[in-house]
Amino acid sequence: MTIGIIGSGNVAWHLAKQFNKLNFDIQWVYSRNEDSGNALANEIQSNFYATFPHQKVDFMFICVNDDQIQKVVDLIPEDCSFVYTSGSIALSSLSCKHQNIGVFYPLQTFSKTKEVDFSETPIFIEASNPNFEEKLNQLASKMSKIVQVLNSEKRTQIHIAAVFANNFVNHLFYIAEQHLQKHDLDFKILKPLVVESIEKAFEIGPKNAQSGPAIRGDFNTIERHLSQLSSSEKEVYQLITKQILQLHHA
Amino acid sequence: MTIGIIGSGNVAWHLAKQFNKLNFDIQWVYSRNEDSGNALANEIQSNFYATFPHQKVDFMFICVNDDQIQKVVDLIPEDCSFVYTSGSIALSSLSCKHQNIGVFYPLQTFSKTKEVDFSETPIFIEASNPNFEEKLNQLASKMSKIVQVLNSEKRTQIHIAAVFANNFVNHLFYIAEQHLQKHDLDFKILKPLVVESIEKAFEIGPKNAQSGPAIRGDFNTIERHLSQLSSSEKEVYQLITKQILQLHHA
Repeated sequence: MTIGIIGSGNVAWHLAKQFNKLNFDIQWVYSRNEDSGNALANEIQSNFYATFPHQKVDFMFICVNDDQIQKVVDLIPEDCSFVYTSGSIALSSLSCKHQNIGVFYPLQTFSKTKEVDFSETPIFIEASNPNFEEKLNQLASKMSKIVQVLNSEKRTQIHIAAVFANNFVNHLFYIAEQHLQKHDLDFKILKPLVVESIEKAFEIGPKNAQSGPAIRGDFNTIERHLSQLSSSEKEVYQLITKQILQLHHA
Repeated sequence: MTIGIIGSGNVAWHLAKQFNKLNFDIQWVYSRNEDSGNALANEIQSNFYATFPHQKVDFMFICVNDDQIQKVVDLIPEDCSFVYTSGSIALSSLSCKHQNIGVFYPLQTFSKTKEVDFSETPIFIEASNPNFEEKLNQLASKMSKIVQVLNSEKRTQIHIAAVFANNFVNHLFYIAEQHLQKHDLDFKILKPLVVESIEKAFEIGPKNAQSGPAIRGDFNTIERHLSQLSSSEKEVYQLITKQILQLHHA
């Protein structure tokens, strides 16, 4: 089976390297970004194209931003199978006549400088027909222990949950970091606490794991904290405190 | 050196067990809660008192809720040294005539059912005089590799940052869990993503680690997500998205 990789961002980078490790035959990398495209092709000893390649492959992996997916699909020959890696684009929303199309969505955050354990990364797949679904299933199962067939609607819900648990959580870390910096304190001192609290949330569930002034109904501390916060910190502090109070003291 | 433990909640439980492991002589546990107080005393083979003990010790550890600390202090003989474990009560706010008083604040989340690696838990100390500070420093250094002398004002700022990075993060997990549950999906599938994203935030800093629709300025996805959310989910989604947009697209 021959593979073509479209895109050279973080997802393309990690998938291509993983396929390479599993001895799949990656014929080429196609990317509008010549620097990162070339770098990726070099990394996996493959060919780089800055324009759409004529060289046919069995499978194309579309690893580009959501708003570029349809444009890429328009370039792909109709007898070629392809998948894309987005959490939020519905398979039915694509306009194309290809027979074998699908989704290959690894639920993970990727950055080029950091290795990822793919065997523990859930991969959600969806396909336009059962044969292609089976093919995707086999492929994904070579990469991960956690492979699940999932329709577009449920994939969207997972993506939403991931926005809260990953993107928004990261913003709270940003607020904490800024607050500590302002007082000459190091963000890193929070790490043991954060690691432990995450273990706990997944072990006993976030509702049971909730702690802090809001769940204790400790209004003295809440007031003291509010008096120390900048206006944007305060917006977040007030909203989440309100929600925790409603949840546990209503 | 003899120790008395006041309180039998999560902090008392973990500190007492840790002191016991380090072969400190815990003379007694005093707690208004007879069940958990007895259980803790049994666990460390010590004595339990449901009323304030007359049996003198060198050190008392006050591990009770913030609003109970002053009440407990009022019971302690003036020639006895004591520390409390709260992040948010200023040492100067206590009304007492004791010579040796201090703070012993382990920055960690504790639950009775889960072991904690104390050697990696930062302990922040503060004392009413240099001699007592040195004593606390020695004591804390036996438990943890990360011991820091810190005044009450800075300790409050750490506590605020911890509320964001621990308590509020946990609430975001709760939202994610509820959202997944509503769609028959399991919260646990998020764990590999969450673990990785936290590693990343501490490695490259939360500002560099930010990802998701908001930082991409992907308003199509943001709108699609908003249309799927309950009103309380939406409040959080809108506020944090607004802040990420301001931060990266202003």
